[in-house]
Amino acid sequence: MNTRLQKVLEQMKLRNLSQLIISDHYSIRYLTGVNNDPGERLYALYINESGRTVLFASRLFRVSEGDFETVFYEDTDDMSAVIANQIVTEGVIGVDKDWPARFLLPLMERCPKLKPVIGSECVDYVRSRKDEKERELMRIASRINDSVIEKARDYVREGMTEKQVARFIDEQYLKEGAEGNSFTTIVSFGANAADPHHEPDDTVLKNGQCVLIDMGCIKDGYCSDMTRTFFYGSVTDREKEIYELVRRANEKAESIIKPGVRLCDIDESARSIISNAGYGKCFTHRLGHFIGMSVHEKPDVSSSYDDPVEPGMIFSIEPGIYLSGDFGVRIEDLVMVTEDGCEVFNHVDKKLQVIGK
Amino acid sequence: MNTRLQKVLEQMKLRNLSQLIISDHYSIRYLTGVNNDPGERLYALYINESGRTVLFASRLFRVSEGDFETVFYEDTDDMSAVIANQIVTEGVIGVDKDWPARFLLPLMERCPKLKPVIGSECVDYVRSRKDEKERELMRIASRINDSVIEKARDYVREGMTEKQVARFIDEQYLKEGAEGNSFTTIVSFGANAADPHHEPDDTVLKNGQCVLIDMGCIKDGYCSDMTRTFFYGSVTDREKEIYELVRRANEKAESIIKPGVRLCDIDESARSIISNAGYGKCFTHRLGHFIGMSVHEKPDVSSSYDDPVEPGMIFSIEPGIYLSGDFGVRIEDLVMVTEDGCEVFNHVDKKLQVIGK
Repeated sequence: MNTRLQKVLEQMKLRNLSQLIISDHYSIRYLTGVNNDPGERLYALYINESGRTVLFASRLFRVSEGDFETVFYEDTDDMSAVIANQIVTEGVIGVDKDWPARFLLPLMERCPKLKPVIGSECVDYVRSRKDEKERELMRIASRINDSVIEKARDYVREGMTEKQVARFIDEQYLKEGAEGNSFTTIVSFGANAADPHHEPDDTVLKNGQCVLIDMGCIKDGYCSDMTRTFFYGSVTDREKEIYELVRRANEKAESIIKPGVRLCDIDESARSIISNAGYGKCFTHRLGHFIGMSVHEKPDVSSSYDDPVEPGMIFSIEPGIYLSGDFGVRIEDLVMVTEDGCEVFNHVDKKLQVIGK
Repeated sequence: MNTRLQKVLEQMKLRNLSQLIISDHYSIRYLTGVNNDPGERLYALYINESGRTVLFASRLFRVSEGDFETVFYEDTDDMSAVIANQIVTEGVIGVDKDWPARFLLPLMERCPKLKPVIGSECVDYVRSRKDEKERELMRIASRINDSVIEKARDYVREGMTEKQVARFIDEQYLKEGAEGNSFTTIVSFGANAADPHHEPDDTVLKNGQCVLIDMGCIKDGYCSDMTRTFFYGSVTDREKEIYELVRRANEKAESIIKPGVRLCDIDESARSIISNAGYGKCFTHRLGHFIGMSVHEKPDVSSSYDDPVEPGMIFSIEPGIYLSGDFGVRIEDLVMVTEDGCEVFNHVDKKLQVIGK
């Protein structure tokens, strides 16, 4: 039995779960090495307390062999029957937080004595502590991100559209050997940057606007994610003030990270700097999120989580201030908790940069 | 009330559903025009029989106004309470086939008298009949696909890797104005083509191998999807025989499509050609799938569906023969049912092509 599965079994025991169905294809890959994504078809890994693991897979997809049983099904099979044949059909069963209703409801209908509860945190817990190999892959994905954002910064010119800059970034990722994006690249000019989730459109860059770029790639299955905010041509005193505030918040949070510090306190360390300056309401989101094979993993760096951080945890630190109708600033790095502090994966200068000159 | 919503209400009535929760972000966009995808956060549209529509949306995302109510929530809210406040908490409720367990199970816990059933076919039914505007967008996405596959065919050279060709295709999509891929580009050389879902790897093209390319892009929110199989340098008699068989199956199916013909009979028309030649077991998948805003929509062109086709339905016709360890051939077009036949969206020649000479 591999170490990862052993750790999941420990978590199941702690949570009194004797059986668990996992459907997140990253989690399945993490535990079995099998990298499939059969879209709308059933794809799930069953784990019971004695360590028996069963992969449910479509006969149409090749599945590499491994330390698990595989149950193949045909498209015409009744999936609830396929699953019910393999599990204990009474009592509690943990299911993936993402498991779709089209599998869950028919299984409940077929097994009225089964009580499904959300159980995927058993795997999420283990995935949130990266092993040595994962740490190195995360470093590499962030190295590509560093390289591409610097190219994008030098590429930006007055008159370009947000879409054009985003496309340039996406092309560079492929050229640098990434598999693709870890999320849709965000490029926001001026007032668009005041919407943290703005999608690139045909807005044209004008002199004096801010250029917020939030981007990430996937390399060998692991994600990067970084944000920088530049100013094109010139910068006002007010923009400078806001920028420095966000930078201080980002650097403060990164400075206090070490094993034992709670996620909520990391969030608060950045948030209080912004709040004390009177911009608390303009920092509308959590400070960060965990990341790995998937760009958003659990838990968050927010007031909702009081877990103390541990070595090998990797998450984003991304404070922002959004001034509706005016501009926005966000500065984001990925960091990894080490034995006595944290390693910042992104090395692109956070000093205020006026570009395009 | 817009026409699309009216049609969904008709479907709800036919299925005795007085209320419905839809979470597929394509369906929400289809019905409201709102194009958000807040990832792991709650995002759902509630529809009741009197036409009341409520969008549940995170306060962090901007939502354009429209012909619906919006209920904003904070990340710290209890989502089951947010939803329960808006719905009838007793009796049957339709839910999206894709709705994740993390929303469904807590809602069931909170509302023990509520009986969720899968209800998203009310929307899927309407989405499967494309309106004029959608038809034109689908044509345009396929036009880009035609153009890019011809460039890829001319680009392929001995010694290139599958990944390299796939990357070229992905870059061309962006250059031709597509938003991105509708699925991960498949490029398979030689024996790799015998796995219908092979992912491009570092396999190097050798003279005499087949080159199977299955690719699609998204343009203005609508998907394309096409497969061609070329032969590099030379082709054997056996490869020719298999190719012509698949081509005949593809063309036969396309020739019988017109309003009233059943999906299963379209599947059978192609399958029988392949089976009669003794290769039935080597054609391992359905003949096709519906497509639109999402690359795989319901229903399928397979023995499982006996719905008669109607004008405006758009689906793939993609017979294949897979000879394990040897090679594989698949030929796929998108087609649209018209008043008296079908329009084939892809125009890339299906005659056997030996390339690279």
